[in-house]
Amino acid sequence: MPDKQTDFTRADAFGKVTGRELYAIDSYPDNMLWAGAKRAGIPHGIIKNIDAADALKLKGVLAVLTAKDVPGSNRQGIIHKDMPVLADTKVRYAGDPVALVIAEDKSLLRKAIDLIRVDIEPLPGVFNVDAALEPSAPLVHEDHKNGNVLVSAEIKKGSGKEALTECDVIVEGSFTTPVQAHTFLETENGIARLEEDGTLTLTVSTQAPYRDKFEIAHALGLNPANIRVIAPYLGGGFGGKDGATVQCLLALAAYNSGGRPVKMVWEREESFLAGYKRHSARTEYRLGARSDGTLHALHCRLYYDTGAYAHLGGEVMGLGMEHAGGPYRIPHTLIEGWCVYTNNPVAGAMRAFGVAQVSFAIEQLMDMLAEKLSMDPLELRIKNALVQGDTNCSGVRLETSTGIYQCLRRLQKHPLWTEREEWKKEAGPFKTRGVGMAAVHNAMGYGKKVRDSAIARVELSKEGRIVVYNSVSDMGQGNASAFAQIAEEILSQDRSSIILVQPDTAQGLPSGSSSAGRTTYTYGNALIKACEELKRRILNRAGLLLFVDDDSELTLEAGRVIHERSGKETSLERLAAFFPKEDFSCTNHFVTPVCKDVPDTGKGIFVGFPHIFFSYSAHLARIIIDRLTGTVEVKDYVAITDAGRELNPVAYAQQIEGGIAQGIGYALTEDFVVKNGIPQGLDLKSYIIPASMDIPDIISLTEETNEETGPFGMKGVGEVAMNGPLPAIANAIVDAGHAREFNAPITAERILKENK
Amino acid sequence: MPDKQTDFTRADAFGKVTGRELYAIDSYPDNMLWAGAKRAGIPHGIIKNIDAADALKLKGVLAVLTAKDVPGSNRQGIIHKDMPVLADTKVRYAGDPVALVIAEDKSLLRKAIDLIRVDIEPLPGVFNVDAALEPSAPLVHEDHKNGNVLVSAEIKKGSGKEALTECDVIVEGSFTTPVQAHTFLETENGIARLEEDGTLTLTVSTQAPYRDKFEIAHALGLNPANIRVIAPYLGGGFGGKDGATVQCLLALAAYNSGGRPVKMVWEREESFLAGYKRHSARTEYRLGARSDGTLHALHCRLYYDTGAYAHLGGEVMGLGMEHAGGPYRIPHTLIEGWCVYTNNPVAGAMRAFGVAQVSFAIEQLMDMLAEKLSMDPLELRIKNALVQGDTNCSGVRLETSTGIYQCLRRLQKHPLWTEREEWKKEAGPFKTRGVGMAAVHNAMGYGKKVRDSAIARVELSKEGRIVVYNSVSDMGQGNASAFAQIAEEILSQDRSSIILVQPDTAQGLPSGSSSAGRTTYTYGNALIKACEELKRRILNRAGLLLFVDDDSELTLEAGRVIHERSGKETSLERLAAFFPKEDFSCTNHFVTPVCKDVPDTGKGIFVGFPHIFFSYSAHLARIIIDRLTGTVEVKDYVAITDAGRELNPVAYAQQIEGGIAQGIGYALTEDFVVKNGIPQGLDLKSYIIPASMDIPDIISLTEETNEETGPFGMKGVGEVAMNGPLPAIANAIVDAGHAREFNAPITAERILKENK
Repeated sequence: MPDKQTDFTRADAFGKVTGRELYAIDSYPDNMLWAGAKRAGIPHGIIKNIDAADALKLKGVLAVLTAKDVPGSNRQGIIHKDMPVLADTKVRYAGDPVALVIAEDKSLLRKAIDLIRVDIEPLPGVFNVDAALEPSAPLVHEDHKNGNVLVSAEIKKGSGKEALTECDVIVEGSFTTPVQAHTFLETENGIARLEEDGTLTLTVSTQAPYRDKFEIAHALGLNPANIRVIAPYLGGGFGGKDGATVQCLLALAAYNSGGRPVKMVWEREESFLAGYKRHSARTEYRLGARSDGTLHALHCRLYYDTGAYAHLGGEVMGLGMEHAGGPYRIPHTLIEGWCVYTNNPVAGAMRAFGVAQVSFAIEQLMDMLAEKLSMDPLELRIKNALVQGDTNCSGVRLETSTGIYQCLRRLQKHPLWTEREEWKKEAGPFKTRGVGMAAVHNAMGYGKKVRDSAIARVELSKEGRIVVYNSVSDMGQGNASAFAQIAEEILSQDRSSIILVQPDTAQGLPSGSSSAGRTTYTYGNALIKACEELKRRILNRAGLLLFVDDDSELTLEAGRVIHERSGKETSLERLAAFFPKEDFSCTNHFVTPVCKDVPDTGKGIFVGFPHIFFSYSAHLARIIIDRLTGTVEVKDYVAITDAGRELNPVAYAQQIEGGIAQGIGYALTEDFVVKNGIPQGLDLKSYIIPASMDIPDIISLTEETNEETGPFGMKGVGEVAMNGPLPAIANAIVDAGHAREFNAPITAERILKENK
Repeated sequence: MPDKQTDFTRADAFGKVTGRELYAIDSYPDNMLWAGAKRAGIPHGIIKNIDAADALKLKGVLAVLTAKDVPGSNRQGIIHKDMPVLADTKVRYAGDPVALVIAEDKSLLRKAIDLIRVDIEPLPGVFNVDAALEPSAPLVHEDHKNGNVLVSAEIKKGSGKEALTECDVIVEGSFTTPVQAHTFLETENGIARLEEDGTLTLTVSTQAPYRDKFEIAHALGLNPANIRVIAPYLGGGFGGKDGATVQCLLALAAYNSGGRPVKMVWEREESFLAGYKRHSARTEYRLGARSDGTLHALHCRLYYDTGAYAHLGGEVMGLGMEHAGGPYRIPHTLIEGWCVYTNNPVAGAMRAFGVAQVSFAIEQLMDMLAEKLSMDPLELRIKNALVQGDTNCSGVRLETSTGIYQCLRRLQKHPLWTEREEWKKEAGPFKTRGVGMAAVHNAMGYGKKVRDSAIARVELSKEGRIVVYNSVSDMGQGNASAFAQIAEEILSQDRSSIILVQPDTAQGLPSGSSSAGRTTYTYGNALIKACEELKRRILNRAGLLLFVDDDSELTLEAGRVIHERSGKETSLERLAAFFPKEDFSCTNHFVTPVCKDVPDTGKGIFVGFPHIFFSYSAHLARIIIDRLTGTVEVKDYVAITDAGRELNPVAYAQQIEGGIAQGIGYALTEDFVVKNGIPQGLDLKSYIIPASMDIPDIISLTEETNEETGPFGMKGVGEVAMNGPLPAIANAIVDAGHAREFNAPITAERILKENK
């Protein structure tokens, strides 16, 4: 943003801090009912009987619905529609919903759910990728054509793995990463009502209000035109609200509530059990280089456990594959991927969608390679860093802004890097210190073959204010604030005259999901065009009102249009009164560019392959290991990031900090343990996320590039930071003299075990 | 238009021929009342009393309203608001309305009007310009600051008239031109109703529906936002419906009709008496040249009689002044103008607004000059013809397309010109033959200081058809057809799928009046942009529906959007069903460029000075004079016209033919005689317009230039042809051996008189 006067305060700050801003979960209309699901409790089995008689005897229990009450396909899923709204013949994971209860209040709801007796004949299950891939493994989906393999695919570039024979040095390893939970503050919830005119209105904590309409319509056999989805600010999302959670259940409930509003809230336990998760993965890598450190060949096999239903599993794996080689030039690659059904909880989208898993592997291998070559690990990365014009590991020529080289160069000069050896020496008793780094990247947008577009709407209100209809949910990342800032800038208005309306499918237009780091880029680009059109229109209509014969002589200022030469002016309010409201409502659209010259490297199902926009970051972690407890303390953290131009330095830094915090949890403590399909502990005592004292003061530095296609030159900044902490900390742990860890999270127990 | 397949049939042809298309005058709603005005009958006087007692005794007469019943300013007028809706203290011309009657039927209305007794004390009047300019002349408007001079102004370029002394040869003359009536088929009329919600709805035969709202609001003290004006196709306008005729009277009637619709129709007699007219003018010219025929200096004085009220008098005079020197390079000019109030009927806009008057003078002077120099008159014109880059007589450098030179060159080769002497020889007994020519031009658009803009709206209907909301009245000139053609072309649709909606201020947006040859240029430019936006939007939304990731791969065809590579397609109807109707409604605007480098040549009131766009034409008339009757027969007529690119050859030729027909009437027969303020004969027996047998087969040739700012390169073609017939015929009469005529129309009586 060129204007130094810009107010960088987040548009949602005041409303959220004062509690005035209402989340979906804050909605408690009069005459409201509660809905909740009875869940399977066992991971695989045939439903023999559901007995709701006792539950229905409770006064105030309106209905207990089962699969036979679902009027449509009873199937949901973004790409593969394999997930029932209510399980019909069998259950595939412990969280599968088998019945939906509607009750007058929350405690009755709980009681009724407990009184439902579900008779499930257990089936043998598959609880990890290896078991699922056994030829004789029980099938999660009997009718799926590839057994338990949801998708298998490969990316081959150059001579593929054959080129490994040409390498002077090879490093290899097998790595595992855990299931991670999104652990948002506001759990999955919503409220629905069937209006008198037949409209089904849902207010829901969702990342994809427009897609929700189609999910509900497909699952319940409804006309999407009759469904309205409203998405207030979310209390966190991180991917976990990208896809149907409460939506179809709530819609079904609304159709059975006699027109009364009905609310569903997944408490933390249910959220852990039934919410989407980050895929656990196992990755097997071989990376080869020339003796001078030039990367030459990569072969890797990636196994993603998608749990009981497809959700976005294939696409998560695909993105992981695209990033498997890191932000480096590697002429020969063979990247193989398997995304596998199991009877575990369902995995789906999560910040750094499939990429966090591979960053753990490639970035440790880079350190291992440096060690083997006796090279500085940062030098090795700089030597191989992609620059604009290079071809990446998928064979895509990078035409868009590519700043990892500059990020690494800058890190190289950072005192936390240059003075690392001195710092390590002062560890003190029972402590060891280490400094590790990682170079990471993350794609922005849906990629090829998945239309990535937005339609922005902005209007001048009758009061002379600017109303921005955000159509991509703001999960807390601040995209809505960016939109206010864009409108403020282009329309030369004060922040106080910008009104932000959060997504409502009845007011905005389809603009895709809040995901893939795309929101500000895609909707922002559309909004710029819409604001420019509104500006032209305001000036034109003012010209009519002021009787000026050339619009270019008019200036739009805060609250008014002036004609300097004559001194004539009109307030925006007066102007708005003269024309129909619709005349001051401007929409415009943007479609994210896709790869024009798709390389012939991908085989298998590759919805979204390839991507052409990436953000980059060089991370450094200084850690202290407590040798007595095994605890790893992240003492300092530096992230130098290229996400194009920085629109709002506050929001930009917040995204980096949030990603690093979530990455530190992923690195050290967050481990969603599932044994034989049963999660072990569904609470925040068992599942440890970092608290504020666990996170160091993060030094976030911006290495600006200009992404020409971006709004004011920006790229998505929401995901890339997530990929750095795990490998940077893992490398720091080795730098501290500890053995290399191949399995995440690197808990105190693991450190102690290795110490023995 | 590039597409050879384009259907040039007028969009209104079928509806008009079959009578299915309804004009304002065709509206006869149930429960309708009639309104009509009692008119002064004498040209100047003080209103002493209005006695409506007898009229009100008639059963079925609802009201007789007078000035005291008018709630607002009781003043109307486009630039100067000096014209009462109902005369209050005095009457200023014979047609001034003094009372408004509302009755159940038309014959009752007539009876009631006749029964009203108006007591007016006569005042001495002024009935021509000379009388009005006498220092002691009675004042038409006692409070007007310049006596009877509405506006006086001058244009001075170079040394002005002083340069006449440097000329080798000077010609001079004094010319008069008559009042001309528009004589449209559909006389002034409309129907109005006060709706239950407070909206005043008028369906009226008007050229300026958007301005009407403000005229009515000002005159009656209403909020323009509550006024809706609908303007169906007009049965002719020619400028006579540019300004309030029935509007304010009807609005007043509607407020006194208890919510019932009320209709007003001016029969031919009332139309002649009270309708606007072309200004009669007297022009005094001195034109000087070098001995080689190079024009050097012009001095002229132009006197326009605007009648009792200003209306557009000053602007008519201004445009006449801008054109006074013809389409020629004259380095030194002094053009003086006076527009004068008299107690004659009100003059206003008429096709070739002020220009037809001066063309008569300058084009005869050119022939006189050629004769004096013994030059070929066409060669003389070619020698002095303006070309692009020249400075015109107002001092404006011509940057826009300027084709008079090419038109004249082409006429020079035309057989009717080259073979003229042979043709003249075969006149036969009692006949003489003559061939005359004229070079004419006419400005397009409102000119500087009068905002000239349009806002077009086009939408995709739920049925998948294209709806064009025309917002500039189609008086019959065919602009609405041009809009259908533009939509058809840009949106690649069949004509049958284009729906044209005629102006309705509740559906369209302000786009100015249907006048000044501006309709297709200004609204057409806006419509092109709106259609392009609709096309982009259709393709974008289709991309969303078809899940195509690049809109540029889609093609819009008749009734559908296709993705050729995949074979995917959607009908427009299906597409329209998926999105809100408003999303497929596109508006865009255009503001006609104005002179950026205004010369310091004009003094006085010059709203609309200067113009920068002109159309040009070279005309030739072959006439036969019957020496026994004095009748002049126009045997052949050639018009070679530059109005930029020809969008629709049929409509283009029709405008040329219509202008020439009206010009022949102006030249030979149309003479609205007013004696002492009283029109002599208010019928078509007295006022003779040419019938089809009076008009030769007109040869209209197009000399295309490309006006870069125009829609598909066009300029306005509606007015220029009007300017040629009078001077071309006058020159032909001299060529036939008759004395030169300085007074128009050149009736048989005048010819005979001169022959004596």
